[in-house]
Amino acid sequence: MKHFDCVVIGTGPGGQKAAIAAAKLGKKVAIIEKSNVLGGAGINTGTIPSKSLREAVLYLTGVNKRGLFGESYRVKRNITISDLVYVSQQVVHSELEVIRDQLERNNVELVWGAARFDQPNVLLVDRHDESEVISGDVIVIASGTQPARPATIPFDDKTIFTSDGLLSLDHIPRTMIVVGGGVIGTEYACILAALGVKIILVEGRHEVLGFLDNEITEAFQYQMRRMGITLRLGEKVARIEHLETGGGSEPAVKAILESGKDLRAQTLLYAVGRQGTTGALCVEKAGLKVDDRQRLTVNEHYQTSQPHIYAVGDVIGFPALASTAMEQGRLAVYHAFGAPTCSIPELFPYGIYAVPEISMVGKTEDQLTKAGIPYEAGIAQYRELARGQILGDIDGMLKLLIHQDNHQILGVHIIGTGATELVHIGQAVMALQGTVDYFINNVFNYPTLAEAYKVAALNGMNKLRHV
Amino acid sequence: MKHFDCVVIGTGPGGQKAAIAAAKLGKKVAIIEKSNVLGGAGINTGTIPSKSLREAVLYLTGVNKRGLFGESYRVKRNITISDLVYVSQQVVHSELEVIRDQLERNNVELVWGAARFDQPNVLLVDRHDESEVISGDVIVIASGTQPARPATIPFDDKTIFTSDGLLSLDHIPRTMIVVGGGVIGTEYACILAALGVKIILVEGRHEVLGFLDNEITEAFQYQMRRMGITLRLGEKVARIEHLETGGGSEPAVKAILESGKDLRAQTLLYAVGRQGTTGALCVEKAGLKVDDRQRLTVNEHYQTSQPHIYAVGDVIGFPALASTAMEQGRLAVYHAFGAPTCSIPELFPYGIYAVPEISMVGKTEDQLTKAGIPYEAGIAQYRELARGQILGDIDGMLKLLIHQDNHQILGVHIIGTGATELVHIGQAVMALQGTVDYFINNVFNYPTLAEAYKVAALNGMNKLRHV
Repeated sequence: MKHFDCVVIGTGPGGQKAAIAAAKLGKKVAIIEKSNVLGGAGINTGTIPSKSLREAVLYLTGVNKRGLFGESYRVKRNITISDLVYVSQQVVHSELEVIRDQLERNNVELVWGAARFDQPNVLLVDRHDESEVISGDVIVIASGTQPARPATIPFDDKTIFTSDGLLSLDHIPRTMIVVGGGVIGTEYACILAALGVKIILVEGRHEVLGFLDNEITEAFQYQMRRMGITLRLGEKVARIEHLETGGGSEPAVKAILESGKDLRAQTLLYAVGRQGTTGALCVEKAGLKVDDRQRLTVNEHYQTSQPHIYAVGDVIGFPALASTAMEQGRLAVYHAFGAPTCSIPELFPYGIYAVPEISMVGKTEDQLTKAGIPYEAGIAQYRELARGQILGDIDGMLKLLIHQDNHQILGVHIIGTGATELVHIGQAVMALQGTVDYFINNVFNYPTLAEAYKVAALNGMNKLRHV
Repeated sequence: MKHFDCVVIGTGPGGQKAAIAAAKLGKKVAIIEKSNVLGGAGINTGTIPSKSLREAVLYLTGVNKRGLFGESYRVKRNITISDLVYVSQQVVHSELEVIRDQLERNNVELVWGAARFDQPNVLLVDRHDESEVISGDVIVIASGTQPARPATIPFDDKTIFTSDGLLSLDHIPRTMIVVGGGVIGTEYACILAALGVKIILVEGRHEVLGFLDNEITEAFQYQMRRMGITLRLGEKVARIEHLETGGGSEPAVKAILESGKDLRAQTLLYAVGRQGTTGALCVEKAGLKVDDRQRLTVNEHYQTSQPHIYAVGDVIGFPALASTAMEQGRLAVYHAFGAPTCSIPELFPYGIYAVPEISMVGKTEDQLTKAGIPYEAGIAQYRELARGQILGDIDGMLKLLIHQDNHQILGVHIIGTGATELVHIGQAVMALQGTVDYFINNVFNYPTLAEAYKVAALNGMNKLRHV
C-alpha cells in the first residue's frame, strides 16, 4: 500500500490546483484520474472544447465581424465538422501538455484508474483487472459533475444527446431543439445558431440565465432572437420521442410541451442540470452521504463530515465554475495542512461564453432593489466607443451600478466582445473599495473597450447630479 | 463679434472633451475646426484609421489565428486596398457621427474654419474669402501635431510619404523602408508586414520603442523579425533619393545610411517626429511663443503664459496620447471655470497597437533598478493559459513587477492579444494600492487572458519565497 500526505481524486481544475498547492507545501501527493485523459470535464467535454468551438465558429463564420464587413460577409461558407474539431482537439492537446508538465514539475504522482473508498483513509484504484491500494492523510474529492440523463428521455447520442454527446457528432445538423436555458444550453444554442443551425430553445422559467441582471438578459434574448433562435420561455417539456425518418434533413425528434405544442427537429440537446460524479466512489465506505443530485456537502473550509476528506469544485454545487473550483482546491489544501489562507472572496465574476459574451460581478439591479440599497445605473454602449466601432461590435454594453450616496460600485454587468476579460477591471475596483471616481479620474488607453467604464461612470454621475 | 465663455481650437480628443466639459458646466462654448471633417488627426489620419486598418488586416490575413489554423491558413489571399479602406472609412464615419451628436446634444457651437489669434481674447476664423471674429473669456488650444516633413527629404506622397500619405496610397506596395522605430513607425511596419509587405525598419537608437521595458522590447523585436521585418537598429539615414524606375515592383526609393549601407524599396515611410500644428495660429499675437518643435509650453493646470489661454493634447508634447489629451481637455476647463478637479493621475497606461499589441503602466525594470527599488518579476506566458491556447496566441506574456518588501505592484508590462485592455486591471490595483495578494486571492473567469495576472502573481511570489 502506497501512502501519501494528500490524495486528490480527479484532475479537473479543482483537483489540479489542490495537488499542486499540496506539492508546493512540500507534501507527498498523488492525483487519481479514471478517464484516459487528464483535465476532467472542463478540458475534455466542457469548458475548453465549447470555448474553442465558439472561437472557431466566431472566426470562421465572421459573426462578430458582420457589423464591419456587412451581413453578407462570410469567411468560409462551408464549414465542416472537421474544421471545428481540428481546432478544439489542438487546444485540448496543448492544455493537457500544460497540465501534465505542471504535475510532473511539482512531483505529483499521477495514478490512472477509478478511485473508490475502502476505508475513510484508504482508496482502491481500479484499472483493467487490478486494484491498487493507496492511502492518504488528507483526501480531496474533485470528481466533478456529469450531465443529468433522466430515464424518461430516450437518449441515443445521435439525435438525442447531452452536451457530452454534442461534441462527438459527426456532422452539423440543420435543426436542433435545446432543452434548458442555463449556461450550457444558451452557450451551445448561440454557437450553433452562428453556424446556421435552426434552434428552438425551451426553458421552464420566463427568461434564460435567471441569475443575470434583467437588462442584460433582455438584451441577450433580443440578440438570440435576432440570430434566428426561437425562444420558448415559460414552457416545460412533457415528453420527448424519436420519429421515424427517411433520413436527410427530416426531423428525427419530437418534443411535446406541457402547453401542447409539438416541436420537431433533426436533433435534441438535453441541457437541464448536472449531477455529482460520485456514483462509483463508494463514499458511504468513508462515512459520507450524497444529496439528491449526487453531490457532497462541505463546511466553509471545504471539509466533508469527515474532517480529513475535503471536496471541491462542481461536486459541491454552487457556483460550479472552473475558476472557483481552482480557488477551492487551493484553499482546501491550505486548510488541511495548516497553511495560512484567507477565505474565498465573495466577489467572483460569472462568465457566459455565449454569442455575445456576457459577464458580471457583484449585485444585479433586482438584488439591490430587494435589499433596499439606493443605486444609479451608468451605461456605456459599445457603439459610443471608438474600439466598439473598430471591432464592429455595436450592440455591446457595460452597466455600472453605483451607490447613490457613497458612490461605491455595487455591480458590473457587461454583454459584448471581451466581457469576460473586462469585468475584472470593475472587480478590482470593487474589491479594493474604489468608487466611481476611480473611473472618472483615471486614464484609459484609446481606443479600448475598457473606456466603457469611464463612459458609464460619467453617465451614472450625470444622472446622480440630478437626484 | 460673437462672444463665448469658452472657445476651443481643434476637434480632436482633447478639444472635444474640453468643449463638452465646459458645456456641461453651463458655459457658452464654441469649437473651431479648420479641416472639413471633425475629430482631428486621431480620427482622420492617425489613431482610428491605423487601428481600423490593423483590425481589418489581422482579421483578413488571419495573422493572429495562425497558431490555431496553421501557417498556411489565410482567409482571403488577395487583399485590395479597397477592402481595407472600406472598413476604415466606415469606422471613421461612425465616429464622426458620435462626435457631432455629442457636440450638438451639449449645445456646443461648431465653427468651421482656420482659427488665428488677433488679440489674446479674439480669434479670426478664416473660411473661403471671409473671416469671422469670435472672442472667448477662456481659449483652449487643442490643435494637435502633424508629421515632421524635413526639407531634406524629397517627399512626393506616392513613393516617399509620412503616415498621413500612407493611408491614401491607392495600392499596397511590395516593399517599404520605414524610417523611425517609434510608435507610428513600428505600428505601420507590423501592420504592413502582416499584409505581406517586405519591410526594412531603420531606427537611430539600439532598440525600437525605447520607453518600453527591455524584456518586452526584446520579445517585440524578436516577433517583428519573425514576421519578416528587417531591423536596422543604431543606424541613421544620411540621405533619401528617388530612383529612376521602369515601374512594376522595381525599387523607386534609395536610402543611404550613415554606415554606408544602400537600402532600396518601392516606397519609404518617414516616421520620425511630429511637430505642433501652431504655424497658422499666430500665437504671437496672443503673446505666446512656441518651442523648436512648434509646441506650446503649459503649467500644471495646462495654462500657457497667458492665464486665460490653455493648451492640451499633443500640441503640448509628452505623453501625446489621445487618452491623456481627453483628460487634459477636461481638467483645463475645470480649472478655467473653478470647478473642483484632481490633477491627472501619474499612472497612465501606454498602448501600442502593433502586431502584437503592447501595453504598460507604471515603471520598467530599468527604471526601478536605477531608482534602487528592490523588485521581483512575476511572469505569465499566454501559452500557459487556456484562453491563450484557444485564441492561438502562444507568444503573449504578462509581467508584473512586485516590490520585494511590501509586495505592491510597481509595473505591468504586457505583449500579446488584448494587452491594451488587460493593462487596466493592473492599473486599477496599482492606483488603489492593492498588492500582489489581490491577484492571488481573487477569482478570475476561466478561460480568460486576465488569468495571466494570477499566474504571474504566483510566479513572482514563488520567486520571492526563496529570497
